[in-house]
Amino acid sequence: MITSKDNSKIKLARALQADSKTRRAEGAFVVEGIRLVEEALISKWEITWAVYTDELGERGRVLIQDMIDRGISVEQVTSRIMHSASDTQTPQGVLAVVQNRSTPLPSKLDFVLIVDELRDPGNLGTMLRTASAAGVGAVLLSAGSVDPFSPKVLRSAMGAHFRLPIDTLAWDQIRMEISKHGLAAYLATADAGQPYTQLDFHRPTALIIGGEAAGASIQAQQVAIDRVYIPMPGGGESLNAAVAAAILMYEVVRQRKLQ
Amino acid sequence: MITSKDNSKIKLARALQADSKTRRAEGAFVVEGIRLVEEALISKWEITWAVYTDELGERGRVLIQDMIDRGISVEQVTSRIMHSASDTQTPQGVLAVVQNRSTPLPSKLDFVLIVDELRDPGNLGTMLRTASAAGVGAVLLSAGSVDPFSPKVLRSAMGAHFRLPIDTLAWDQIRMEISKHGLAAYLATADAGQPYTQLDFHRPTALIIGGEAAGASIQAQQVAIDRVYIPMPGGGESLNAAVAAAILMYEVVRQRKLQ
Repeated sequence: MITSKDNSKIKLARALQADSKTRRAEGAFVVEGIRLVEEALISKWEITWAVYTDELGERGRVLIQDMIDRGISVEQVTSRIMHSASDTQTPQGVLAVVQNRSTPLPSKLDFVLIVDELRDPGNLGTMLRTASAAGVGAVLLSAGSVDPFSPKVLRSAMGAHFRLPIDTLAWDQIRMEISKHGLAAYLATADAGQPYTQLDFHRPTALIIGGEAAGASIQAQQVAIDRVYIPMPGGGESLNAAVAAAILMYEVVRQRKLQ
Repeated sequence: MITSKDNSKIKLARALQADSKTRRAEGAFVVEGIRLVEEALISKWEITWAVYTDELGERGRVLIQDMIDRGISVEQVTSRIMHSASDTQTPQGVLAVVQNRSTPLPSKLDFVLIVDELRDPGNLGTMLRTASAAGVGAVLLSAGSVDPFSPKVLRSAMGAHFRLPIDTLAWDQIRMEISKHGLAAYLATADAGQPYTQLDFHRPTALIIGGEAAGASIQAQQVAIDRVYIPMPGGGESLNAAVAAAILMYEVVRQRKLQ
């Protein structure tokens, strides 16, 4: 039983939660809660170790036993220690450190989401959740975007990280992927270009979503073959970035009859 | 210049931010930031009073002068006082108390969003923002939902409150509105009923979105003539509630060619 906040695992968990530099240096990140730890396990990502409290219910205890059976190092901690390691106000009783394996991009891609200069972790997490549901082949992030392995992104993505290739790339590399897969790249704007229902999304498509405040970068504008917007018959300045991304992704799904 | 946290206005602002009971008792709510105060003013909602700090830029100073010209009571406060009145970590330099006028529901309604048992204020705010953009005629909330005039809802709705009739009603009243306007009410689910693109949204339509965790109430299930779902060709358990609402609302917009 870990009872000290100075325990090296607990210190590492705090550092991984707080800081993308530590996440990169360690090649690891933290997931919290039964659902996310289950998803990591099912998806065969490597869990280095996990901690839990005695507040876990039946489903949580089954999960702990499952990890022990697989030889994963699992230790009990006090509520106070879980609080100090957790990113949330109300920790869910289990926390795991997961090795960040870089999922290779698929050799064939015909539906890609490119996220540029996005700052809000909740928005990014929601986009990843929607992208996974919509059957997007990969999500590419430009270097200026929020770290997809930060705790808030992981929470709102609801396990999409374990189902979907997500890669942070330089624009040169993003440009190479677009060209390699012959993707038609459309940049989402508030009111410029084509209404989104007028585009033909049967061809290999990349949707580019820019940041909430400053919009997309010059590089994003350069790789786009056209701009696309979502009409707002009721008026208003813009849609939430995660909402706009969802409406566009689901128009691709609708046109391709993927449903 | 207000310099005391015990000033009656500052105490009222804090109470209005913290507590829906105070908001109901006072018939008022707080908006923060230049954009929202501007929208309240343009939409001719009654601003009782406002406070500001000297950190405001040009656009903010124009807004303050505009309020003074209209005879609204405006006072300067210190940064420390603004912090104590604000709901955010980084206050934007202007805060106003707005009288909550109940916008009467339109006499004709053919596109309604019904929100049931929704708990997350960010989700509700995002839904209101999308509903306003999509041209929804009114948003009806069941009594179990989060207060639409709470600070987080106001922030994420980006002014939708001033452009869109929003009403919290008992289910009896919601049922009456559905019947009065001849609305076909569809309940959004994760996987039951019809795929959303198969429904005919040319007829007067109400979309019912249930809560994030427990889903919709018995009453919501009873008023619905059918269930509707959004296919997830990529898998996953569900979509974010605000994302699901957006995809459904924009399918109505698309079918009706409102764009």
